[in-house]
Amino acid sequence: MKERLFTPGPTMVPEEVLLEMAKPVVHHRSEEFGRLFAQVQEDLKYLFQTENPVLILTSSGTGAMEAAVANLLSRRDTALVVRGGKFGERWGEICEAYGVRYVAVDVEWGYAVDPEDVRKALRDHPEVRAVLATQSETSTGVLHDVKALAEVAREADALLVVDAISSLGAHPLPMDEWGVDVVLTGSQKGLMLPPGLAFISLSERAWKAAERSDLPKYYWDLAKARSSLSKGQTPYTPAVSLVVGLARSLKILREVGLESLWRRHARHAEATRRAVGALGLELFSHSPSNVLTIVKVPDGVDGKALLKAAQAYGATFAGGQEKLSGKVVRITHLGYMDDFDTLSAVAALERALRDVGYDVPLGKGVAAAQEVLSEG
Amino acid sequence: MKERLFTPGPTMVPEEVLLEMAKPVVHHRSEEFGRLFAQVQEDLKYLFQTENPVLILTSSGTGAMEAAVANLLSRRDTALVVRGGKFGERWGEICEAYGVRYVAVDVEWGYAVDPEDVRKALRDHPEVRAVLATQSETSTGVLHDVKALAEVAREADALLVVDAISSLGAHPLPMDEWGVDVVLTGSQKGLMLPPGLAFISLSERAWKAAERSDLPKYYWDLAKARSSLSKGQTPYTPAVSLVVGLARSLKILREVGLESLWRRHARHAEATRRAVGALGLELFSHSPSNVLTIVKVPDGVDGKALLKAAQAYGATFAGGQEKLSGKVVRITHLGYMDDFDTLSAVAALERALRDVGYDVPLGKGVAAAQEVLSEG
Repeated sequence: MKERLFTPGPTMVPEEVLLEMAKPVVHHRSEEFGRLFAQVQEDLKYLFQTENPVLILTSSGTGAMEAAVANLLSRRDTALVVRGGKFGERWGEICEAYGVRYVAVDVEWGYAVDPEDVRKALRDHPEVRAVLATQSETSTGVLHDVKALAEVAREADALLVVDAISSLGAHPLPMDEWGVDVVLTGSQKGLMLPPGLAFISLSERAWKAAERSDLPKYYWDLAKARSSLSKGQTPYTPAVSLVVGLARSLKILREVGLESLWRRHARHAEATRRAVGALGLELFSHSPSNVLTIVKVPDGVDGKALLKAAQAYGATFAGGQEKLSGKVVRITHLGYMDDFDTLSAVAALERALRDVGYDVPLGKGVAAAQEVLSEG
Repeated sequence: MKERLFTPGPTMVPEEVLLEMAKPVVHHRSEEFGRLFAQVQEDLKYLFQTENPVLILTSSGTGAMEAAVANLLSRRDTALVVRGGKFGERWGEICEAYGVRYVAVDVEWGYAVDPEDVRKALRDHPEVRAVLATQSETSTGVLHDVKALAEVAREADALLVVDAISSLGAHPLPMDEWGVDVVLTGSQKGLMLPPGLAFISLSERAWKAAERSDLPKYYWDLAKARSSLSKGQTPYTPAVSLVVGLARSLKILREVGLESLWRRHARHAEATRRAVGALGLELFSHSPSNVLTIVKVPDGVDGKALLKAAQAYGATFAGGQEKLSGKVVRITHLGYMDDFDTLSAVAALERALRDVGYDVPLGKGVAAAQEVLSEG
């Protein structure tokens, strides 16, 4: 059976990238790898829209989040954490692990943070050194307004650190222009690669702050990574096959161009949202991201059975996380997806709903999506 | 040109493993991945010769070293570090990063540690909680006697942590039988995989010690990894394509069997050492490991030019690290290598020596190696 991965990471990887990674392994200190690494660096800067170096870590995206905390903050420093989902909460957990105090700005799951609330919290807590936020919260399908957060953080002279693990390449995040101090992402989302690499870039202000950090770090030591990067290397053996794949996927992304990428994600998300409406279903997010669409499981339907029913067609959706377990279906717009994949996702959702006994107007979702997608 | 990687990591990967990893990406929470993960766990236990769980980290081997320190020790604890090369020194660097004190037992590069020296140091420093050692020191080609170190550590009631990044699968290391408390390794060595995964297993004693550790950790939190493992998962998205490749490479290793693997590495190492002797060259290590053979660059020969000359034949050797830079050639016996690859390595070394103007009895090394390899 033909398998389709509609999960928000890992996502589908282009065949040409898979085949590139299947070539014999190259050595990470070779000239060949050095050339490839230099090109990758240029392409990553384009993706991050920054003049600052973009460091490559062999880890999941969480590793880059931990690296941000471990490098920017010190014991007994205070951070501000925007929480409104599983990944926002992770920022708080990492702070706790390191003995970093934090002020939480809590948002109801499904809603975006009001930048005014962050402004107020920063006024109440002038000791905050860094705001730790998420651009697209994958557990709730919410897009937060990073541009506004950057302004608010700047006013309070706090650093803004953005988890863009799922959003980079899907939504605009011009790091330098908006004045975001740290942007980090992972390989298995918009970059159309398998998981295993994470990326992080720091503004000059952030590098300055890193100098005074006293938190322990070795593998996550970003100053060391920057120093290796200037020699075209990484401090420790990187996942070379993934870096080789990265070079290819970045080439594809660059040829497509960021604007086209953002438009594609917007079209696919809009098509899916309209399909959801046409099927009489509800969206979970009140501020929907173009990274993924989260559909509420209708009353009386067993969410886990629904996922299983889709799986029978080779369509893998993600279920809800933590308190949303069994209550939502998460459908990604990330990765190697085209219009017809998006139609397939909607079609699989329709059939799975029918198969679990939910009366759905078969074809109405697909037609609504097709209408949006055909507009181009 | 046909490329051959004779470096001690990354090493050559079997074509069938490369192709397995080129299949469409699977989801890490799927049933399919769960089944594969369970099989991988059984095969890793066989490789580690342990009944304890073997945790999988998405990182280089250094990440697993850091995880060992961060989970077993506490601030102001004292460790004992066996240093006699770049990787032994790394243990000390990680301790420093975490504010862990350490007693160093220093060994001249090229020599194995005398377990008596460790015994003495442990008597002088009863406060030592853990001995941090290396089985095969890849920078010097030295094999340390882990069995003896385990006895010495046990006498002093200290934990023994062994970096077996390059040695697991090449040299015996029956973790449970010898009473080694922590064994860790990486994917890009004996496991015949690209870099990107690390593995670590803890004895019950080590898990007990981990309970009192107060060092900050999040990504490296091994208790969390163990708890996820019991559900057939990892706490964060793993490098799924590498895990898929791992399943295949472990299957191959298990079919070959550990005894045969050890014998193969011993034969290839012996063949290479004899070739080095037949060519009138010298070995660097006085206690040579079967992981790699380190040849001294003859006087008057430019070590870097020698590597470049070999490269012209598609043969990648590694040069010396740190103070050995330019002074040695490192030839691995790890990875997807057979007798003819070992002959090719010797042949490339002979030709490269000739090409940089060093008078070498061409063919004598190859003949000596062939003699050993033909004995079976």
